[in-house]
Amino acid sequence: MRRFLIVGNLASTQPFSLNDLPGAGRIDILCRCVAQSLFISHGIRKNVEVYLLLLGQPDPPKSVKICGYEVKRMAPDERNIAGHIKKALKLKTGYNWRKVHSGVYISKKGLRDLIDELKCCEIYYLREDGTDIRSIVSEIKEPLFVLGDHIGLKPEDEKIILDYTKEIISVSPLSLQSDQCIVIVHYELDRVEPSN
Amino acid sequence: MRRFLIVGNLASTQPFSLNDLPGAGRIDILCRCVAQSLFISHGIRKNVEVYLLLLGQPDPPKSVKICGYEVKRMAPDERNIAGHIKKALKLKTGYNWRKVHSGVYISKKGLRDLIDELKCCEIYYLREDGTDIRSIVSEIKEPLFVLGDHIGLKPEDEKIILDYTKEIISVSPLSLQSDQCIVIVHYELDRVEPSN
Repeated sequence: MRRFLIVGNLASTQPFSLNDLPGAGRIDILCRCVAQSLFISHGIRKNVEVYLLLLGQPDPPKSVKICGYEVKRMAPDERNIAGHIKKALKLKTGYNWRKVHSGVYISKKGLRDLIDELKCCEIYYLREDGTDIRSIVSEIKEPLFVLGDHIGLKPEDEKIILDYTKEIISVSPLSLQSDQCIVIVHYELDRVEPSN
Repeated sequence: MRRFLIVGNLASTQPFSLNDLPGAGRIDILCRCVAQSLFISHGIRKNVEVYLLLLGQPDPPKSVKICGYEVKRMAPDERNIAGHIKKALKLKTGYNWRKVHSGVYISKKGLRDLIDELKCCEIYYLREDGTDIRSIVSEIKEPLFVLGDHIGLKPEDEKIILDYTKEIISVSPLSLQSDQCIVIVHYELDRVEPSN
Protein backbone atom coordinates (compact mmCIF):
# COMPACT_ATOMS: atom_id res chain seq x y z
CA MET A 1 0.00 0.00 0.00
CA ARG A 2 1.19 3.52 -0.84
CA ARG A 3 -0.18 6.29 1.34
CA PHE A 4 -0.03 10.05 0.91
CA LEU A 5 -0.83 12.73 3.48
CA ILE A 6 -1.16 16.27 2.18
CA VAL A 7 -1.44 19.16 4.61
CA GLY A 8 -3.75 21.96 3.45
CA ASN A 9 -2.78 24.81 5.74
CA LEU A 10 -5.64 27.06 4.67
CA ALA A 11 -8.02 24.48 3.20
CA SER A 12 -11.65 25.24 3.98
CA THR A 13 -13.34 23.13 6.67
CA GLN A 14 -16.82 24.08 5.52
CA PRO A 15 -18.58 23.53 2.17
CA PHE A 16 -17.22 25.87 -0.51
CA SER A 17 -18.06 27.06 -4.01
CA LEU A 18 -16.97 24.67 -6.74
CA ASN A 19 -16.47 27.75 -8.93
CA ASP A 20 -13.59 29.09 -6.81
CA LEU A 21 -11.41 26.26 -5.51
CA PRO A 22 -8.30 28.45 -5.06
CA GLY A 23 -10.44 30.82 -2.96
CA ALA A 24 -11.42 27.94 -0.66
CA GLY A 25 -7.93 27.87 0.87
CA ARG A 26 -6.33 26.30 -2.20
CA ILE A 27 -8.58 23.26 -2.29
CA ASP A 28 -7.48 23.08 -5.95
CA ILE A 29 -4.03 21.93 -4.79
CA LEU A 30 -5.52 19.15 -2.67
CA CYS A 31 -7.74 18.03 -5.57
CA ARG A 32 -4.73 17.77 -7.87
CA CYS A 33 -2.90 15.80 -5.19
CA VAL A 34 -5.80 13.35 -4.94
CA ALA A 35 -5.94 13.01 -8.74
CA GLN A 36 -2.24 12.32 -9.05
CA SER A 37 -2.23 9.92 -6.12
CA LEU A 38 -5.12 7.79 -7.37
CA PHE A 39 -5.49 7.97 -11.13
CA ILE A 40 -3.63 6.38 -13.98
CA SER A 41 -4.88 6.19 -17.55
CA HIS A 42 -8.40 4.71 -17.53
CA GLY A 43 -8.09 3.45 -13.98
CA ILE A 44 -7.53 3.99 -10.27
CA ARG A 45 -4.60 2.69 -8.27
CA LYS A 46 -6.13 0.20 -5.86
CA ASN A 47 -3.04 0.23 -3.66
CA VAL A 48 -3.31 3.87 -2.58
CA GLU A 49 -4.83 5.74 0.34
CA VAL A 50 -4.84 9.54 0.36
CA TYR A 51 -5.23 11.59 3.51
CA LEU A 52 -6.05 15.31 3.28
CA LEU A 53 -5.57 17.39 6.41
CA LEU A 54 -7.72 20.52 6.19
CA LEU A 55 -6.51 23.25 8.54
CA GLY A 56 -8.45 26.27 7.28
CA GLN A 57 -11.38 28.05 8.90
CA PRO A 58 -13.94 27.81 10.34
CA ASP A 59 -13.61 24.40 12.03
CA PRO A 60 -10.06 22.97 11.82
CA PRO A 61 -8.81 20.34 11.85
CA LYS A 62 -10.71 18.01 9.56
CA SER A 63 -9.29 15.02 7.73
CA VAL A 64 -10.55 13.36 4.57
CA LYS A 65 -9.47 9.84 3.66
CA ILE A 66 -9.89 8.44 0.14
CA CYS A 67 -9.21 4.75 -0.51
CA GLY A 68 -8.28 3.67 -4.03
CA TYR A 69 -9.55 0.15 -3.43
CA GLU A 70 -13.06 1.36 -2.57
CA VAL A 71 -13.70 4.66 -4.28
CA LYS A 72 -16.37 4.94 -6.96
CA ARG A 73 -17.71 7.66 -9.22
CA MET A 74 -14.57 9.77 -8.92
CA ALA A 75 -13.01 11.40 -11.98
CA PRO A 76 -9.60 13.07 -12.16
CA ASP A 77 -10.81 16.62 -12.83
CA GLU A 78 -10.51 19.09 -9.98
CA ARG A 79 -14.20 19.95 -9.85
CA ASN A 80 -15.23 16.32 -9.50
CA ILE A 81 -12.81 15.65 -6.66
CA ALA A 82 -13.74 18.94 -5.00
CA GLY A 83 -17.36 17.81 -5.14
CA HIS A 84 -16.47 14.73 -3.09
CA ILE A 85 -14.63 16.86 -0.51
CA LYS A 86 -17.49 19.34 -0.34
CA LYS A 87 -19.97 16.53 0.22
CA ALA A 88 -17.81 15.26 3.08
CA LEU A 89 -17.69 18.71 4.65
CA LYS A 90 -21.48 18.88 4.75
CA LEU A 91 -21.60 16.03 7.29
CA LYS A 92 -21.50 16.32 11.05
CA THR A 93 -18.05 15.06 11.95
CA GLY A 94 -16.56 13.49 15.05
CA TYR A 95 -13.22 11.96 15.95
CA ASN A 96 -13.80 8.61 14.25
CA TRP A 97 -13.85 8.17 10.47
CA ARG A 98 -17.33 8.67 9.10
CA LYS A 99 -18.14 7.20 5.72
CA VAL A 100 -19.31 9.81 3.22
CA HIS A 101 -19.79 7.27 0.46
CA SER A 102 -17.82 4.45 -1.09
CA GLY A 103 -14.13 5.00 -0.36
CA VAL A 104 -14.43 8.52 1.08
CA TYR A 105 -14.32 9.22 4.82
CA ILE A 106 -14.13 12.30 7.04
CA SER A 107 -13.13 12.89 10.66
CA LYS A 108 -12.00 15.59 13.09
CA LYS A 109 -8.54 14.03 13.36
CA GLY A 110 -5.60 16.41 13.44
CA LEU A 111 -2.02 15.84 12.35
CA ARG A 112 -0.94 14.04 15.53
CA ASP A 113 -3.98 11.75 15.38
CA LEU A 114 -3.29 10.85 11.75
CA ILE A 115 0.36 10.15 12.35
CA ASP A 116 -0.51 8.07 15.39
CA GLU A 117 -2.96 6.05 13.29
CA LEU A 118 -0.38 5.57 10.53
CA LYS A 119 2.78 5.17 12.55
CA CYS A 120 3.13 1.54 11.47
CA CYS A 121 3.99 2.88 8.02
CA GLU A 122 7.45 4.01 7.02
CA ILE A 123 7.02 7.79 7.08
CA TYR A 124 8.81 9.77 4.39
CA TYR A 125 8.63 13.54 4.59
CA LEU A 126 9.09 15.35 1.28
CA ARG A 127 11.29 18.43 1.56
CA GLU A 128 13.60 20.03 -0.96
CA ASP A 129 16.74 19.43 1.10
CA GLY A 130 16.05 15.72 1.56
CA THR A 131 17.79 12.62 0.28
CA ASP A 132 17.31 11.99 -3.43
CA ILE A 133 14.41 9.51 -3.72
CA ARG A 134 16.20 7.68 -6.51
CA SER A 135 19.00 6.66 -4.19
CA ILE A 136 16.64 4.94 -1.72
CA VAL A 137 13.57 3.99 -3.74
CA SER A 138 14.31 0.27 -3.82
CA GLU A 139 14.24 0.17 0.00
CA ILE A 140 10.81 1.77 0.38
CA LYS A 141 8.13 -0.55 1.84
CA GLU A 142 4.64 0.35 3.13
CA PRO A 143 5.32 4.07 2.88
CA LEU A 144 3.39 7.11 4.01
CA PHE A 145 4.58 10.19 2.12
CA VAL A 146 3.87 13.49 3.86
CA LEU A 147 3.70 16.70 1.84
CA GLY A 148 2.81 20.30 2.52
CA ASP A 149 0.79 22.49 0.18
CA HIS A 150 2.09 25.73 -1.38
CA ILE A 151 2.98 27.01 2.09
CA GLY A 152 4.80 23.88 3.20
CA LEU A 153 4.46 22.75 6.81
CA LYS A 154 4.31 25.05 9.80
CA PRO A 155 7.23 24.53 12.22
CA GLU A 156 5.01 22.97 14.88
CA ASP A 157 3.54 20.51 12.36
CA GLU A 158 6.95 19.70 10.93
CA LYS A 159 8.13 18.88 14.44
CA ILE A 160 5.34 16.28 14.83
CA ILE A 161 6.23 14.70 11.49
CA LEU A 162 9.96 14.66 12.11
CA ASP A 163 9.48 12.68 15.32
CA TYR A 164 8.20 9.78 13.21
CA THR A 165 10.04 10.32 9.92
CA LYS A 166 12.17 7.48 8.61
CA GLU A 167 13.78 9.75 6.04
CA ILE A 168 13.39 13.22 4.56
CA ILE A 169 13.35 12.80 0.81
CA SER A 170 13.56 15.11 -2.18
CA VAL A 171 12.18 14.37 -5.63
CA SER A 172 13.69 17.01 -7.89
CA PRO A 173 16.46 19.57 -8.17
CA LEU A 174 13.66 22.12 -8.66
CA SER A 175 10.98 23.26 -6.24
CA LEU A 176 7.86 21.54 -7.54
CA GLN A 177 4.17 21.60 -6.75
CA SER A 178 2.85 18.96 -4.35
CA ASP A 179 0.92 17.06 -7.03
CA GLN A 180 4.01 16.93 -9.24
CA CYS A 181 5.96 15.43 -6.33
CA ILE A 182 3.33 12.71 -6.03
CA VAL A 183 3.61 11.86 -9.74
CA ILE A 184 7.37 11.48 -9.35
CA VAL A 185 7.09 9.35 -6.20
CA HIS A 186 4.73 6.98 -8.02
CA TYR A 187 6.99 6.98 -11.07
CA GLU A 188 10.09 6.03 -9.12
CA LEU A 189 8.20 3.34 -7.20
CA ASP A 190 6.58 2.00 -10.39
CA ARG A 191 9.99 1.53 -11.95
CA VAL A 192 10.87 -0.75 -9.04
CA GLU A 193 7.49 -2.48 -8.71
CA PRO A 194 4.69 -1.40 -11.07
CA SER A 195 1.81 -2.71 -8.97
CA ASN A 196 -1.38 -0.71 -9.14
CA MET B 1 13.38 25.30 -25.07
CA ARG B 2 11.05 22.42 -24.19
CA ARG B 3 7.91 22.15 -26.27
CA PHE B 4 4.83 20.01 -25.76
CA LEU B 5 2.05 19.31 -28.25
CA ILE B 6 -1.08 17.67 -26.87
CA VAL B 7 -3.77 16.42 -29.22
CA GLY B 8 -7.32 16.86 -27.93
CA ASN B 9 -9.30 14.55 -30.19
CA LEU B 10 -12.68 15.76 -28.96
CA ALA B 11 -11.71 19.13 -27.46
CA SER B 12 -14.31 21.80 -28.09
CA THR B 13 -13.52 24.40 -30.75
CA GLN B 14 -16.13 26.83 -29.47
CA PRO B 15 -16.49 28.54 -26.07
CA PHE B 16 -17.65 26.10 -23.40
CA SER B 17 -18.98 26.08 -19.86
CA LEU B 18 -16.27 26.39 -17.21
CA ASN B 19 -18.54 24.27 -14.97
CA ASP B 20 -18.20 21.17 -17.16
CA LEU B 21 -14.71 20.86 -18.61
CA PRO B 22 -14.92 17.07 -19.12
CA GLY B 23 -18.13 17.66 -21.10
CA ALA B 24 -16.31 20.07 -23.41
CA GLY B 25 -14.45 17.20 -25.08
CA ARG B 26 -12.16 16.60 -22.11
CA ILE B 27 -10.78 20.13 -22.00
CA ASP B 28 -9.90 19.23 -18.38
CA ILE B 29 -7.14 16.94 -19.69
CA LEU B 30 -5.66 19.73 -21.80
CA CYS B 31 -5.79 22.13 -18.84
CA ARG B 32 -3.87 19.69 -16.68
CA CYS B 33 -1.33 19.24 -19.45
CA VAL B 34 -0.83 23.01 -19.64
CA ALA B 35 -0.46 23.24 -15.87
CA GLN B 36 2.10 20.46 -15.70
CA SER B 37 4.04 21.80 -18.68
CA LEU B 38 4.33 25.34 -17.36
CA PHE B 39 4.13 25.49 -13.60
CA ILE B 40 6.56 24.71 -10.85
CA SER B 41 6.19 25.79 -7.22
CA HIS B 42 5.58 29.55 -7.15
CA GLY B 43 6.64 30.04 -10.74
CA ILE B 44 6.38 29.35 -14.43
CA ARG B 45 8.96 27.60 -16.57
CA LYS B 46 10.17 30.27 -18.99
CA ASN B 47 11.72 27.68 -21.30
CA VAL B 48 8.44 26.00 -22.28
CA GLU B 49 5.95 26.35 -25.11
CA VAL B 50 2.71 24.34 -25.05
CA TYR B 51 0.66 23.62 -28.15
CA LEU B 52 -2.90 22.33 -27.81
CA LEU B 53 -4.52 20.89 -30.91
CA LEU B 54 -8.30 21.03 -30.55
CA LEU B 55 -10.06 18.61 -32.88
CA GLY B 56 -13.59 18.60 -31.49
CA GLN B 57 -16.73 20.16 -32.94
CA PRO B 58 -17.94 22.50 -34.31
CA ASP B 59 -14.95 24.07 -36.09
CA PRO B 60 -11.84 21.83 -36.04
CA PRO B 61 -8.95 22.16 -36.16
CA LYS B 62 -7.90 24.98 -33.85
CA SER B 63 -4.56 25.33 -32.14
CA VAL B 64 -3.70 27.21 -28.97
CA LYS B 65 -0.11 28.15 -28.17
CA ILE B 66 0.98 29.18 -24.66
CA CYS B 67 4.47 30.56 -24.11
CA GLY B 68 6.01 30.28 -20.67
CA TYR B 69 8.31 33.24 -21.27
CA GLU B 70 5.38 35.61 -21.99
CA VAL B 71 2.31 34.35 -20.20
CA LYS B 72 0.74 36.40 -17.41
CA ARG B 73 -2.20 36.03 -15.06
CA MET B 74 -2.31 32.27 -15.42
CA ALA B 75 -2.75 30.00 -12.38
CA PRO B 76 -2.33 26.22 -12.29
CA ASP B 77 -5.95 25.35 -11.51
CA GLU B 78 -7.99 23.82 -14.32
CA ARG B 79 -10.68 26.48 -14.30
CA ASN B 80 -8.18 29.31 -14.68
CA ILE B 81 -6.42 27.68 -17.62
CA ALA B 82 -9.76 26.75 -19.17
CA GLY B 83 -10.74 30.41 -18.93
CA HIS B 84 -7.73 31.32 -21.08
CA ILE B 85 -8.65 28.68 -23.67
CA LYS B 86 -12.27 29.79 -23.69
CA LYS B 87 -11.23 33.40 -24.22
CA ALA B 88 -9.10 32.31 -27.18
CA LEU B 89 -12.03 30.39 -28.68
CA LYS B 90 -14.19 33.52 -28.63
CA LEU B 91 -11.94 35.19 -31.22
CA LYS B 92 -12.27 35.02 -34.99
CA THR B 93 -9.41 32.80 -36.01
CA GLY B 94 -7.40 32.44 -39.23
CA TYR B 95 -4.36 30.45 -40.27
CA ASN B 96 -1.77 32.69 -38.62
CA TRP B 97 -1.30 32.87 -34.86
CA ARG B 98 -3.52 35.53 -33.34
CA LYS B 99 -2.57 36.95 -29.96
CA VAL B 100 -5.31 36.48 -27.36
CA HIS B 101 -3.31 38.18 -24.65
CA SER B 102 0.18 37.99 -23.24
CA GLY B 103 1.65 34.59 -24.09
CA VAL B 104 -1.55 33.00 -25.44
CA TYR B 105 -2.22 32.62 -29.18
CA ILE B 106 -4.80 30.85 -31.34
CA SER B 107 -4.90 29.75 -34.97
CA LYS B 108 -6.68 27.42 -37.39
CA LYS B 109 -3.52 25.32 -37.81
CA GLY B 110 -3.97 21.57 -37.95
CA LEU B 111 -1.53 18.84 -36.99
CA ARG B 112 0.44 18.94 -40.25
CA ASP B 113 0.75 22.74 -40.04
CA LEU B 114 2.02 22.56 -36.46
CA ILE B 115 4.52 19.84 -37.21
CA ASP B 116 5.72 21.77 -40.26
CA GLU B 117 6.19 24.87 -38.10
CA LEU B 118 8.07 22.88 -35.46
CA LYS B 119 10.03 20.46 -37.59
CA CYS B 120 13.32 22.09 -36.59
CA CYS B 121 12.76 20.56 -33.14
CA GLU B 122 13.69 17.01 -32.26
CA ILE B 123 10.27 15.37 -32.25
CA TYR B 124 9.63 12.74 -29.57
CA TYR B 125 6.34 10.90 -29.69
CA LEU B 126 5.18 9.46 -26.37
CA ARG B 127 3.73 5.99 -26.67
CA GLU B 128 3.69 3.11 -24.21
CA ASP B 129 5.81 0.82 -26.38
CA GLY B 130 8.57 3.39 -26.91
CA THR B 131 12.16 3.55 -25.75
CA ASP B 132 12.56 4.21 -22.03
CA ILE B 133 13.13 7.98 -21.69
CA ARG B 134 15.73 7.38 -18.99
CA SER B 135 18.01 5.61 -21.44
CA ILE B 136 18.13 8.57 -23.86
CA VAL B 137 17.38 11.64 -21.74
CA SER B 138 20.91 12.98 -21.77
CA GLU B 139 20.82 13.17 -25.58
CA ILE B 140 17.62 15.23 -25.81
CA LYS B 141 18.10 18.77 -27.20
CA GLU B 142 15.44 21.26 -28.35
CA PRO B 143 12.65 18.70 -28.05
CA LEU B 144 9.02 18.73 -29.05
CA PHE B 145 7.11 16.06 -27.14
CA VAL B 146 3.90 14.92 -28.80
CA LEU B 147 1.16 13.32 -26.68
CA GLY B 148 -2.38 12.18 -27.25
CA ASP B 149 -5.24 12.68 -24.81
CA HIS B 150 -7.22 9.81 -23.22
CA ILE B 151 -7.95 8.46 -26.70
CA GLY B 152 -4.39 8.58 -27.95
CA LEU B 153 -3.73 9.58 -31.56
CA LYS B 154 -5.87 8.53 -34.50
CA PRO B 155 -3.97 6.37 -37.03
CA GLU B 156 -3.92 9.15 -39.65
CA ASP B 157 -2.54 11.65 -37.13
CA GLU B 158 0.01 9.18 -35.84
CA LYS B 159 1.22 8.68 -39.41
CA ILE B 160 1.90 12.43 -39.74
CA ILE B 161 3.82 12.45 -36.48
CA LEU B 162 5.84 9.33 -37.24
CA ASP B 163 7.14 10.87 -40.47
CA TYR B 164 8.98 13.44 -38.36
CA THR B 165 9.63 11.53 -35.14
CA LYS B 166 13.21 11.21 -33.95
CA GLU B 167 12.24 8.59 -31.40
CA ILE B 168 9.15 7.04 -29.84
CA ILE B 169 9.61 7.21 -26.09
CA SER B 170 7.89 5.74 -23.07
CA VAL B 171 7.89 7.24 -19.59
CA SER B 172 6.55 4.51 -17.33
CA PRO B 173 5.88 0.80 -17.10
CA LEU B 174 2.23 1.80 -16.46
CA SER B 175 -0.23 3.50 -18.75
CA LEU B 176 -0.38 7.04 -17.38
CA GLN B 177 -2.42 10.15 -18.03
CA SER B 178 -0.98 12.72 -20.43
CA ASP B 179 -0.30 15.30 -17.73
CA GLN B 180 1.53 12.70 -15.64
CA CYS B 181 3.73 11.91 -18.64
CA ILE B 182 4.62 15.60 -18.90
CA VAL B 183 5.63 15.75 -15.23
CA ILE B 184 7.93 12.78 -15.76
CA VAL B 185 9.47 14.21 -18.95
CA HIS B 186 10.29 17.43 -17.09
CA TYR B 187 11.60 15.45 -14.12
CA GLU B 188 13.98 13.37 -16.20
CA LEU B 189 15.18 16.44 -18.11
CA ASP B 190 15.56 18.46 -14.89
CA ARG B 191 17.84 15.80 -13.46
CA VAL B 192 20.13 16.34 -16.43
CA GLU B 193 19.79 20.12 -16.68
CA PRO B 194 17.48 21.85 -14.21
CA SER B 195 16.98 25.04 -16.22
CA ASN B 196 13.60 26.70 -15.89
